[in-house]
Amino acid sequence: MASGTVCYACGTTYPSTERLRCDCGEPVWIEVDPSGFDWSAVRDGEQGVWRYADLLPVEPSTDVSAGAGDTPLIRAERLDEYAGCRLHVKDEGLNPTGSFKDRGSAVGVGAAIERGRELVGTVSHGNMAMSTAAMAAGRGLDCVVLVPERIPPGRLELIAQYEPTLLKVAGDYGRLYDETVSLDTEPAIEFVNSDAPLRVEGQKTVALELCEAFAPDVPDAIVLPVSSGGHASAVWKGLRELSAAGVVDDLPRLYLVQAAACDPVARAYREGAETVTPVDPDETVAFSISNASPPSGNRALAAVRDTGGAAVSVSEAAITEAQSILATEAGLCVEPASATTLAGVRTLTDEGELAADEDVVVVTTGTGFKELGTGSEPSDARTIDLGDLETELSAIVSNPSG
Amino acid sequence: MASGTVCYACGTTYPSTERLRCDCGEPVWIEVDPSGFDWSAVRDGEQGVWRYADLLPVEPSTDVSAGAGDTPLIRAERLDEYAGCRLHVKDEGLNPTGSFKDRGSAVGVGAAIERGRELVGTVSHGNMAMSTAAMAAGRGLDCVVLVPERIPPGRLELIAQYEPTLLKVAGDYGRLYDETVSLDTEPAIEFVNSDAPLRVEGQKTVALELCEAFAPDVPDAIVLPVSSGGHASAVWKGLRELSAAGVVDDLPRLYLVQAAACDPVARAYREGAETVTPVDPDETVAFSISNASPPSGNRALAAVRDTGGAAVSVSEAAITEAQSILATEAGLCVEPASATTLAGVRTLTDEGELAADEDVVVVTTGTGFKELGTGSEPSDARTIDLGDLETELSAIVSNPSG
Ligand SMILES: [Zn+2]
Ligand SMILES: [Zn+2]
Repeated sequence: MASGTVCYACGTTYPSTERLRCDCGEPVWIEVDPSGFDWSAVRDGEQGVWRYADLLPVEPSTDVSAGAGDTPLIRAERLDEYAGCRLHVKDEGLNPTGSFKDRGSAVGVGAAIERGRELVGTVSHGNMAMSTAAMAAGRGLDCVVLVPERIPPGRLELIAQYEPTLLKVAGDYGRLYDETVSLDTEPAIEFVNSDAPLRVEGQKTVALELCEAFAPDVPDAIVLPVSSGGHASAVWKGLRELSAAGVVDDLPRLYLVQAAACDPVARAYREGAETVTPVDPDETVAFSISNASPPSGNRALAAVRDTGGAAVSVSEAAITEAQSILATEAGLCVEPASATTLAGVRTLTDEGELAADEDVVVVTTGTGFKELGTGSEPSDARTIDLGDLETELSAIVSNPSG
Repeated sequence: MASGTVCYACGTTYPSTERLRCDCGEPVWIEVDPSGFDWSAVRDGEQGVWRYADLLPVEPSTDVSAGAGDTPLIRAERLDEYAGCRLHVKDEGLNPTGSFKDRGSAVGVGAAIERGRELVGTVSHGNMAMSTAAMAAGRGLDCVVLVPERIPPGRLELIAQYEPTLLKVAGDYGRLYDETVSLDTEPAIEFVNSDAPLRVEGQKTVALELCEAFAPDVPDAIVLPVSSGGHASAVWKGLRELSAAGVVDDLPRLYLVQAAACDPVARAYREGAETVTPVDPDETVAFSISNASPPSGNRALAAVRDTGGAAVSVSEAAITEAQSILATEAGLCVEPASATTLAGVRTLTDEGELAADEDVVVVTTGTGFKELGTGSEPSDARTIDLGDLETELSAIVSNPSG
């Protein structure tokens, strides 16, 4: 289905589907012909992202990549008041490695195999590293993961379980991403980084699923955390393809949320800038989305403006509160980066960007289980004697909140 | 759809759907009329377990309970040689709280609300506790979780995030389960423990999904870890209902696996016993299934014998090896209790119970993410300089395993 690559910004097309950047400097994406696509073209015999194989540049598979995608869409009605709108949660933590990254890794690893690469590679010390390593393991492709020298041992352990070749890189980790983009000296390795065209193809399937779930309507708004801008670009691309196919009329508005501690995209949006300027970041609990110089930042901005959305940033306290509210009022365990979305929705409803009667989908991109369970959070659990069980339970029934 | 409860062992029926035990001492299950059910009765408008609402004693919902079930079925072809058969993995770790328990909690919490209970309760210090607390949080029902006095702080943290009422119970934790079964002094609390009839109803949906995925055939064998016996009983019940509905002809054979350190069911099977005798357990990495006195052990044995399966136990080394193989060769991160299934398959193929051309589904019941990420596992990652990146990558391409 793929006929080449094209630049979203200047419209230049390139015949190679393997190109990463336009001559203008912006990232390209893979041209897929959506004409003729409608919901009847969804492949019921396939699972996950492969249900949309007609819009993907790679053939379906039945290994662990078939577990990527097809995540639940939760109607979190109990959070409507807190959110200020009709809140839906797309729980992307329920992917095989616990994050949305599996969609892009599934497509990226599949394409690496079809392209005859000897290895797949990635620059990541978090969800993307785990995801790429797992999808490669499931298909028997060797994988190299480049991590920063000072990666926390817990995160290294999560990646290492899949046994990729792990290299700690000493030096400027920010520069490493650019290095791998221009690394055409090693055609044997397919680097599927966060805004690589192949990853964007996989990540766009979340937009397809959301629109299919709401068909023939669409949600009024989709809210994403933004880091590199690759995910936002992918959702935008998915929506554009559905629009081009005539499957949807109006596009949902795309809203992007960042931690205020590291918010280059939100800052550029506030300032009305066309391009994103790198920032000097502070620490944030939402470390998964702490990207001070997002490679697809300009494209993410374009997505926001094209769909009539906005980009906002939220405080550490708002993130932590939203994470707790998602657990205690919706039963969802998400990582702080994902909780930014709910915090962002509150800001957006306060600002009148989102209305009470609108259907708003927050995409919670990763599970909270990888970080929890260390026992560092104290609990106020009381100890009772087995013999006092009935008495204690009666007391709780009389006073459930006590 | 529910008309009462019935004892699998002696056939006695009871008009109440709320009964837990037969007069003969065995657990009862809820009578559901499967006549008229076929795959066209699956509700496409619902998600997860609620797709099978026609066979459940409770109405569907759209909150986090809709995220329970509908887990991926992975064809782990790369493990066929290791397993000795055509291996499929039902990845139950991709439920909202990372385990198969969410299916039963979804139904249990839903029924507790329909029955007008003030609270839902459970006796657990692991997956079931998290699951019950999360499903209750998502529906706004108060929840009480009874944990042992010496629960590890990491596990307490995982449960506490959903803010149930947590009670540490001092005294014999094994006795606590029985106490809550007979706790009819507190009708305001619905205890949805591991073999409670309501939980069994939810857990049976995994059997429905597996048969739907293989329809019009069925897998040759289904392999489960066994603890209380509730899960095995549920899978058996699901298969029986499909058989009664005429939707499937031959039933898959049901195989149960335990850690040798705590294997009362496997021991009873080996000895040809009709009933399970409590054991004095050793420590096992598969702590989630360490149940020395399984309340539905006899029923699990009956399930095995009725379907022509078997119950086996596996060593600690075999469990650890299987867990690693699932990660490195299939890209799946599962908890040790789940890895017992693959270890068990190897034993069963060695014994000639499973054949190379048979489709065998192992149900991996829980994610490994809750236990991983502590940084306790050393990694052999090398450190390189950014400037040496190209040279290092070239070396890896020339020698991928190096
Ligand atoms: Zn351009
Ligand atoms: Zn009986």
